[in-house]
Amino acid sequence: MKAVILFSGGLDSTVLAQQLVQEKADVRLLSIHYGQRHHKELQHSTRIAQLLGLPHQILDFSSLGKLLSGSSLTDDTVSLPEGHYAEESMKSTVVPNRNMILLSLAGGHALSIGFDTIAYAAHAGDHTIYPDCRPEFANAMETVLNLADWAPLRLHRPFVNLKKQDLVKLGHKMGAPLNETWSCYAGRDLHCGKCGTCVERKEAFSLANIPDPTKYET
Amino acid sequence: MKAVILFSGGLDSTVLAQQLVQEKADVRLLSIHYGQRHHKELQHSTRIAQLLGLPHQILDFSSLGKLLSGSSLTDDTVSLPEGHYAEESMKSTVVPNRNMILLSLAGGHALSIGFDTIAYAAHAGDHTIYPDCRPEFANAMETVLNLADWAPLRLHRPFVNLKKQDLVKLGHKMGAPLNETWSCYAGRDLHCGKCGTCVERKEAFSLANIPDPTKYET
Repeated sequence: MKAVILFSGGLDSTVLAQQLVQEKADVRLLSIHYGQRHHKELQHSTRIAQLLGLPHQILDFSSLGKLLSGSSLTDDTVSLPEGHYAEESMKSTVVPNRNMILLSLAGGHALSIGFDTIAYAAHAGDHTIYPDCRPEFANAMETVLNLADWAPLRLHRPFVNLKKQDLVKLGHKMGAPLNETWSCYAGRDLHCGKCGTCVERKEAFSLANIPDPTKYET
Repeated sequence: MKAVILFSGGLDSTVLAQQLVQEKADVRLLSIHYGQRHHKELQHSTRIAQLLGLPHQILDFSSLGKLLSGSSLTDDTVSLPEGHYAEESMKSTVVPNRNMILLSLAGGHALSIGFDTIAYAAHAGDHTIYPDCRPEFANAMETVLNLADWAPLRLHRPFVNLKKQDLVKLGHKMGAPLNETWSCYAGRDLHCGKCGTCVERKEAFSLANIPDPTKYET
């Protein structure tokens, strides 16, 4: 497998990268700055790529934020909600069509370097709030990726039926650098501990029964 | 219909814009600079948008060129071929996964402004060389766009079975500003008359039996 991994520097994509390294796949990491409020994820992605010894490309697409208004992740005028993903307010963290955009960019990159696979770390915990994390979305994306060029592109999504705590267990078992991953939507020195993704991160370590190496503000 | 049109300022998307204006659709034009060798298309797209009285947004994504190397349209180190699209050399004008990237961006924009449709002007003449202009690609894209959010997005592609000469006839009949459209891959003052898209443009006017308003260098 020659795979471009959509790599945010978060927990999920780090576990995916570690897994493909163990499987001896030929791997390149691709991080895309799509106008997020902060660059913290990208700093962490660089460090993790070095630890894993993998080639890493960062695409600056910060102009995308202007095109996709209304998400609290890219639009400074929308306030960042705190609490659990289950809450209605968390819907403001949806970036319209984000996964299709990121996967199509990874697809273009894979085709241009002669790779045959795109790998991404969508998991079952994402589905209830993010429509473009559903397995049926991933299946439809693979169909269209198969038609985008004369040679088919495979979409590798091994976590689509796993929960986040399963990824914590898997990453811990493989020795993935979970302590170096970044989840928090706020971009301060430490994880805030209160936003949706911090709450989910804490919960995942707790449910996995694995000590959480993250330093939180609270 | 509330439609975001992928709008290059070329002949095909101008005819599409004119058609949707005539059909009284609510239309916004979206032009994306994806690292093409020149900005000529964008200048023309601005002028045509003004003529049609349509809102027009330009997204600067010139960093994409670095991610998608190897196409003569985005990579200055690859020479621009001349001649007919039927020729093997013309394959260097394929930008890997271009249409999926552009459609996914248009989809994100449509969702963020509450529009229900993406319109694009792929036509039958494109198919033999560009895999992502095939009707089956467009059908698969619509399936995935239907799953990208909780509300389905429609993909309007009325020209997918028409030839370029049919678009010239249609545009001429509707009074579309065909004389303002830009096709040429080279970015000089006049259309070069020799690159693939100039050859195709000339041929389309000729087959449509409509006087070609374009000034060519040759």
